Amino acid sequence: MTIYQATASAPILGKRDTKLILPTNSSLSVTLDQDHLRSTTTSRADPSFEKDRLWLNGQEDEIKEGGRLATCIKEMKSLRRQIEEKDPSLPKISSYAVHISSHNNFPTAAGLASSASGFAALVASLAALYQLPTDPSQLSLIARQGSGSACRSLFGGFVAWQMGERADGSDSYAVQIAPREHWPDIHALICVVSDDKKGTSSTSGMQRTVETSTLLQHRIKHVVPERMRMISEAIRARDFDTFARVTMQDSNQFHAVALDTEPPIFYMNDVSRAIIALIVEYNRIAVETGGKLKAAYTYDAGPNAVIYAPKENIKEIVELIVKYFPQAEPFKDPFGLFDDEDVQGNVVEGFNQSVSKPFGVGAVKGLIHTRVGDGPRVLGAEEALLGENGLPKSPSA
Amino acid sequence: MTIYQATASAPILGKRDTKLILPTNSSLSVTLDQDHLRSTTTSRADPSFEKDRLWLNGQEDEIKEGGRLATCIKEMKSLRRQIEEKDPSLPKISSYAVHISSHNNFPTAAGLASSASGFAALVASLAALYQLPTDPSQLSLIARQGSGSACRSLFGGFVAWQMGERADGSDSYAVQIAPREHWPDIHALICVVSDDKKGTSSTSGMQRTVETSTLLQHRIKHVVPERMRMISEAIRARDFDTFARVTMQDSNQFHAVALDTEPPIFYMNDVSRAIIALIVEYNRIAVETGGKLKAAYTYDAGPNAVIYAPKENIKEIVELIVKYFPQAEPFKDPFGLFDDEDVQGNVVEGFNQSVSKPFGVGAVKGLIHTRVGDGPRVLGAEEALLGENGLPKSPSA
Repeated sequence: MTIYQATASAPILGKRDTKLILPTNSSLSVTLDQDHLRSTTTSRADPSFEKDRLWLNGQEDEIKEGGRLATCIKEMKSLRRQIEEKDPSLPKISSYAVHISSHNNFPTAAGLASSASGFAALVASLAALYQLPTDPSQLSLIARQGSGSACRSLFGGFVAWQMGERADGSDSYAVQIAPREHWPDIHALICVVSDDKKGTSSTSGMQRTVETSTLLQHRIKHVVPERMRMISEAIRARDFDTFARVTMQDSNQFHAVALDTEPPIFYMNDVSRAIIALIVEYNRIAVETGGKLKAAYTYDAGPNAVIYAPKENIKEIVELIVKYFPQAEPFKDPFGLFDDEDVQGNVVEGFNQSVSKPFGVGAVKGLIHTRVGDGPRVLGAEEALLGENGLPKSPSA
Repeated sequence: MTIYQATASAPILGKRDTKLILPTNSSLSVTLDQDHLRSTTTSRADPSFEKDRLWLNGQEDEIKEGGRLATCIKEMKSLRRQIEEKDPSLPKISSYAVHISSHNNFPTAAGLASSASGFAALVASLAALYQLPTDPSQLSLIARQGSGSACRSLFGGFVAWQMGERADGSDSYAVQIAPREHWPDIHALICVVSDDKKGTSSTSGMQRTVETSTLLQHRIKHVVPERMRMISEAIRARDFDTFARVTMQDSNQFHAVALDTEPPIFYMNDVSRAIIALIVEYNRIAVETGGKLKAAYTYDAGPNAVIYAPKENIKEIVELIVKYFPQAEPFKDPFGLFDDEDVQGNVVEGFNQSVSKPFGVGAVKGLIHTRVGDGPRVLGAEEALLGENGLPKSPSA
């Protein structure tokens, strides 16, 4: 019996859980390295399967009829059917139900955006299963049917999502500004921030912003296009100073229009604010001593900070964050910055230490050091998440 | 020997420490009742005084040459000189140096705006000392020389500060939309919020916003004028629902443009956010049960909340705030809402208690219940802050 199965992994984005960002404006993302953070998905088509089923981190999830997931699977099956009709020698696997098992290698509780990477891994694994074209632009058009945002996780490197102008969204797509190899020196430190905010669902947040903010349209029409142009140029020129400045400006303005919503939306909390204050001061020292910006913060629809910096600055930044946000666990040092030494909590010379109070252990629950990464990868059978019986290998995983 | 001395008190404003708000846009303030919060100033002119001197809460403060204070005193002396020249029978007190003692009846640490009320009390006391016209519009023109913002504390009730269009500011002035008697039912609960934010000077905050925010100009030109029209109409019509809606929208947008500043300015903290969440939920219940908004929050350049509500809702609001922010001291109940009972920390029926976590004692350091109030008052000699020797009565006060 032939097993029709494929496994793929996809990266997460350093900027914006686009589930929450309607394509009301163009935006730029940095793809993060799958070596550190990824979604992995195995898809299998089999005549014995009774219906399409999905497991997320071992837990079965309903595939709602007419939902994004169902739409995406249906679209992929339809593309498979087209090539089966053209080439009758191909097995008719488009008529089989599929089992899909997906896994994120980071805790959901971390609040990292998993929706886009999950969809991208799904699309990439189905494309491999159905032997569809794996060109990111082609996949991007498919992925957009299920989740507009997923189209960005199909590229590596620096990715722009164009808003487009057509009502049907057909000109709203992702393009790669530059591959990771163009500027591999861009590293990221993710600060996983504890959040005890309750009761505010952020799912419909951006929709409310669209309906009630009197600043959003001005932002979309008059601010974002110029910033997209500037940051794309900065990436092409490997100009970290401009990249950092625009990244921080735009993160702030995203949260400004969230606040300008009725009722207001606050994604950042006092810990997020304190991290901003630290990076602002760290950059102030750098600029005043004749240099340029050394780090950039950005916040999505939540309190976690992603700090971008050239690799050479990450050690200083880890020291700085740990000084104000002591960690329960030793820093995981995937790039060997500390040569097995402990993080001391040092600050750079001239740093005004009163810009923030020190916080207690747990305010920043974890630090993840990663860097710009590549797009989805098709993995070998040994990494499959479905067992021979077509069910997740470790349901409790 | 004749003593040339006068004492006046002036109210604080329920909205915006205008020291920090350049007249970049028109804004509306509610004058708060001087029975609860006020600045009091005694001014005395005497030929024996060697120079102009000022004491603030008993501490001598330098009168900087060319500063706002010096300008204001000079302008008042000049107006006195004009009437002395017209009427030679008047004593030539404009040539004497003055001693000024000013006192706020609320702790500076409370973070309540004292600059505008202090200037207004100064202007009112000098006007009384010099027997200048005490018509608020006249005084407003004088006060604007020293502190544009002070012109608002010279009125009672509901006061608009018009931005004006002329470069010299001559058409930037305050007008009373309605006196307190028009709508005396507007009460206010001030939540004094503990703030351990450090290092961010807010003095130059609004100037940086003007220089770096790409949303501010849109706000000034396209949003504020319509809101000013709406809130003025709401006051005239005693329409609390509209008053509340516009107040909250505009508070949020003020903080949105602060966040859109480079580097970003955060005046609110997690406690401020939690109070917003409570008022949003309190209003949600009210609206869903067929009613209208029952309360409005507003935040100035700091974390303190001012909650406006019709008097009949204040008891519920105090209960709500105390439930989430337990108080070290019993609630001071100037209007006898609780009939000497303790505050129980009750919430209204249907209230979703998970909209905020409960905070510890001290997160909200104090609650002040007040209401819309009148303009400056000239006080009797028994309330003078200067002793017979021309020095503050109790330097340590």
